[in-house]
Amino acid sequence: MPGQIKSIENLINEFKKLPGIGPKSARRIVYYLLKQNEKEILSFANALVDMKKKIKFCKNCFNLSEEDECPICKDNSRDKSIICIVEKASDIMVIESAGEYKGLYHVLGGLLSPIENIGPDELKIPQLIERIQNLNVNEIILALNSTVEGDSTATYLNKALKHLGVKITRLASGIPVGGDIEYADQITIGRAISGRREF
Amino acid sequence: MPGQIKSIENLINEFKKLPGIGPKSARRIVYYLLKQNEKEILSFANALVDMKKKIKFCKNCFNLSEEDECPICKDNSRDKSIICIVEKASDIMVIESAGEYKGLYHVLGGLLSPIENIGPDELKIPQLIERIQNLNVNEIILALNSTVEGDSTATYLNKALKHLGVKITRLASGIPVGGDIEYADQITIGRAISGRREF
Repeated sequence: MPGQIKSIENLINEFKKLPGIGPKSARRIVYYLLKQNEKEILSFANALVDMKKKIKFCKNCFNLSEEDECPICKDNSRDKSIICIVEKASDIMVIESAGEYKGLYHVLGGLLSPIENIGPDELKIPQLIERIQNLNVNEIILALNSTVEGDSTATYLNKALKHLGVKITRLASGIPVGGDIEYADQITIGRAISGRREF
Repeated sequence: MPGQIKSIENLINEFKKLPGIGPKSARRIVYYLLKQNEKEILSFANALVDMKKKIKFCKNCFNLSEEDECPICKDNSRDKSIICIVEKASDIMVIESAGEYKGLYHVLGGLLSPIENIGPDELKIPQLIERIQNLNVNEIILALNSTVEGDSTATYLNKALKHLGVKITRLASGIPVGGDIEYADQITIGRAISGRREF
């Protein structure tokens, strides 16, 4: 295209790589950034580099962290007898934002998938078993997605952890809060009925 | 929120400032970036700083440019007897992408707006008049938005430039290509009819 300016197109291309950002949004963002002053652009660029430099995995739970132990593992007010198993670190943020759970976490780093050649040793399952054996854990909550991979990982973990003498629970399935029964799918309705609770 | 990691939240906040990116998209983008390697993050950060450092305004048309003259003004194959007036530099890209126009541009840097105290001297209108007087310009195309400000700026320019002896034209209004007559508004239909052309 004639009249292209290299440094602008470069930045548009960088934004286009990000999830959920198409060519039009990328261009709109870059023209917005062109209007910002140098201080703001530098603070953006520094935030990018800074995050990459500082973030590592927590040595206990494999959550993202700036230190060896993540803020949740270091927090003494949290209940250390209960571990919530999640697929990825971003799931922790979602659960934390609900403010309901006060225990620890363990990030598997994926889900079992024979097709993609992901077995238990590719995930942080051996480390989970070690943690349960070393700590005084009473309950394991499986907070995995309701997908084929999520369900089969949950089934595998249930078998693998049963003999350790901990209670294993799953998140409740059912109608989302604010959701309309009319639009719920059959499987969700079925689970909501089978999992019904006394009023 | 407990368990927040400062450098991650910092970067999420930077992304939230961008147009069209809400808290959920910002978090999704940052978790995506966490999975990228250092080289890719550095190239993103460099593209940001680079653009800010290199971009200035073209001394003729106020398009964005890495040099004193923008690539369009420097291009000898372009028709220098016709100038297309646009509100902002990003409009040039949109018109260029159509590939229909081969003349020069002039970026006003805004639209007349008495409410916001923007008069002709706040825009690049004096520079436009100077350009028309110094160059051998035959035609001025007003490519301004069909809004109150766009229309009043067009009316003002029409009056201000008339005595310079150039032909002044406007973009055609009408039904968008691929658009449905059923869903077009009354004003658009009206303009499409009054601006009808022989088949």
